[in-house]
Amino acid sequence: MADTKTADYQHVLFETEGPIAHVTMNRPTKRNALSLEHMQELIGVLETISNNQKIAVVILKGSGPAFCAGHDLSEMPNQSPVFYRHLFDVCTKLMETIQSIPQPVIAQVHGIATAAGCQLVATCDLAVAEENAKFATPGVKIGLFCSTPMVALTRAVGRKKAMEMLLTGEALDSEGALLAGLINRAVPAEDLENETKALAQKIAAASTFTVGIGKQAFYKQIEMPQPLAYSYAKEVMSLNATAADAEEGICAFLEKRPPNWKGC
Amino acid sequence: MADTKTADYQHVLFETEGPIAHVTMNRPTKRNALSLEHMQELIGVLETISNNQKIAVVILKGSGPAFCAGHDLSEMPNQSPVFYRHLFDVCTKLMETIQSIPQPVIAQVHGIATAAGCQLVATCDLAVAEENAKFATPGVKIGLFCSTPMVALTRAVGRKKAMEMLLTGEALDSEGALLAGLINRAVPAEDLENETKALAQKIAAASTFTVGIGKQAFYKQIEMPQPLAYSYAKEVMSLNATAADAEEGICAFLEKRPPNWKGC
Amino acid sequence: MADTKTADYQHVLFETEGPIAHVTMNRPTKRNALSLEHMQELIGVLETISNNQKIAVVILKGSGPAFCAGHDLSEMPNQSPVFYRHLFDVCTKLMETIQSIPQPVIAQVHGIATAAGCQLVATCDLAVAEENAKFATPGVKIGLFCSTPMVALTRAVGRKKAMEMLLTGEALDSEGALLAGLINRAVPAEDLENETKALAQKIAAASTFTVGIGKQAFYKQIEMPQPLAYSYAKEVMSLNATAADAEEGICAFLEKRPPNWKGC
Repeated sequence: MADTKTADYQHVLFETEGPIAHVTMNRPTKRNALSLEHMQELIGVLETISNNQKIAVVILKGSGPAFCAGHDLSEMPNQSPVFYRHLFDVCTKLMETIQSIPQPVIAQVHGIATAAGCQLVATCDLAVAEENAKFATPGVKIGLFCSTPMVALTRAVGRKKAMEMLLTGEALDSEGALLAGLINRAVPAEDLENETKALAQKIAAASTFTVGIGKQAFYKQIEMPQPLAYSYAKEVMSLNATAADAEEGICAFLEKRPPNWKGC
Repeated sequence: MADTKTADYQHVLFETEGPIAHVTMNRPTKRNALSLEHMQELIGVLETISNNQKIAVVILKGSGPAFCAGHDLSEMPNQSPVFYRHLFDVCTKLMETIQSIPQPVIAQVHGIATAAGCQLVATCDLAVAEENAKFATPGVKIGLFCSTPMVALTRAVGRKKAMEMLLTGEALDSEGALLAGLINRAVPAEDLENETKALAQKIAAASTFTVGIGKQAFYKQIEMPQPLAYSYAKEVMSLNATAADAEEGICAFLEKRPPNWKGC
Repeated sequence: MADTKTADYQHVLFETEGPIAHVTMNRPTKRNALSLEHMQELIGVLETISNNQKIAVVILKGSGPAFCAGHDLSEMPNQSPVFYRHLFDVCTKLMETIQSIPQPVIAQVHGIATAAGCQLVATCDLAVAEENAKFATPGVKIGLFCSTPMVALTRAVGRKKAMEMLLTGEALDSEGALLAGLINRAVPAEDLENETKALAQKIAAASTFTVGIGKQAFYKQIEMPQPLAYSYAKEVMSLNATAADAEEGICAFLEKRPPNWKGC
């Protein structure tokens, strides 16, 4: 890849490939467990990306045998409530940052995605998984219900399916995750990287300005009762329509030529 | 069909066939694009239907090669913010009218349903599509994110699927739309009209009074937290239970005879 | 089964089998119709279970040919509004009690589950059904729209599917119910009891304390906008993490031994 900027990070690889940013959780011997430091670095990378208008889309993946096995349990026993509140504050900030940066974030999932790792999948804007991936919220088995992963899971899949995952801790395979709406695509392992990149490139072909408006509006309007959501979305779309990239896009379409985005 | 009332409309055909109203978007050379005038006529037809107690159910369809290709892009470039706000106000009013009239509205979808055309499908109470229909929210490709269609789309299908449609602009086929929950049935093209009509007739066999109560309550309660939704639905159902058509329906059921609806 | 406690109930069987409570609707000649007395007994059984820390999970089923055919229509004609409000108050209390007791409730569905019977399935935390089961909200056919069942149904399945069931009154089969997210599993009739029990046993293997925390948090957070849901879930999970069963579960996991739950 053309550009590598991982010097500042201990647990994360950050590379850019044209308009695509690759963010790799890089604690392979720990199955990319989300230690406090690891999560803080992920937040840092995402905030850096947020301010880089050359980056159109982010692929989030894991090195080694797994996507992400959730929190680092070796950090957890016999801690104070203050520690846990801080841990879950940072974890929630990571999830909220994924959804609040203007660039879409695609989870590229192989191996397992469990607990907060499954929450990452539910939280990312899109997710592509290898066919043999496994998704679980197994906290109930260790006496610690996956309550914060539940927030993301119940907003991505139906109630009965979410409740089953949370109460039994059993894994969904990729086919089940696809049917449940937790992921967008299940592909053979050897195609995972290419399929994810192809999806990223499709998004990168659009105006980053337009995509950023749309992603932000997606998460804002979905929290609103429908009448308010329409009031809000009408304003968003009216402003979007007067922007240079909408003028350009509509003219290019009517003139049957490719658009030349200005990013504003 | 028995009765034709299209004289008042330039862009819309309005016919009744017993208790079924057929509303046809009739700008075939424009793939039934939703110009301002076209939307205003659709609102007018729906409001007329709303006040006609002989109409039990509405079928919304398109003439020519497509169901509806969304807004009329030839109207859109180089307009003022005032124009766009008005355009999206009228479009939102059309969507809200579909859900607020007492009669269920079934989208009968052939060809493409894109942007605000896809929003129509998401907004209608029910949707039947031919197997080869296509559903897309492709605004992102022309720099104008489908923010108002998103309001309807994200309330009909899961988040990951909606986000994929919005970010890529790629089309779902009818099978995908069925799995996603965007439509109720995918049928061979030659059966589309008959299957849609059969569904309409099933609904028309019920008390229009009861159906109107139920449709209104559906959209009201779905916006509420569950405890308030129950408080509301209990009142709705208690009042419904004391109405003539419920008395008649329950007695007919217990006496094993067909009901004789009074419409109140 | 080891323990039988049905003496206090006329319409309900209540038995325990280790940590599993079996609650059987027992009006087989009435297809377990939910008369006022029947619902009051079900509420009473569930409240008793709620206070019994030895019970980890509840299986709700029906005796005779059906799971539950909804309200008892023979009670309903020619009643006053006061009667109906009381009837739907008690019915709503039954549904809310199922979700508010700490133990998960699994619907074990055979034959038909209609109207308030279908609402029971939508309301239970999990549902296992025989392949030939049928699910319907047919109130519209008797002039009495299934408005209160709709509250549960629309929170379990997508809008288009829910609207179709409510407007047509037609039944979903178990395969359709599984695809729609109304049930968790569709199994051959001869496996229904064993499959449901196996699911119950999986849940009963967890700490009842942890499960109770998780179930309560599930229904609380799902009503909240996401930022509030996270604020709430972080507190729940932080407190859960300091509890004895989480300490024990995490240590057991790290020490690769089975946990020894204390229930606190």
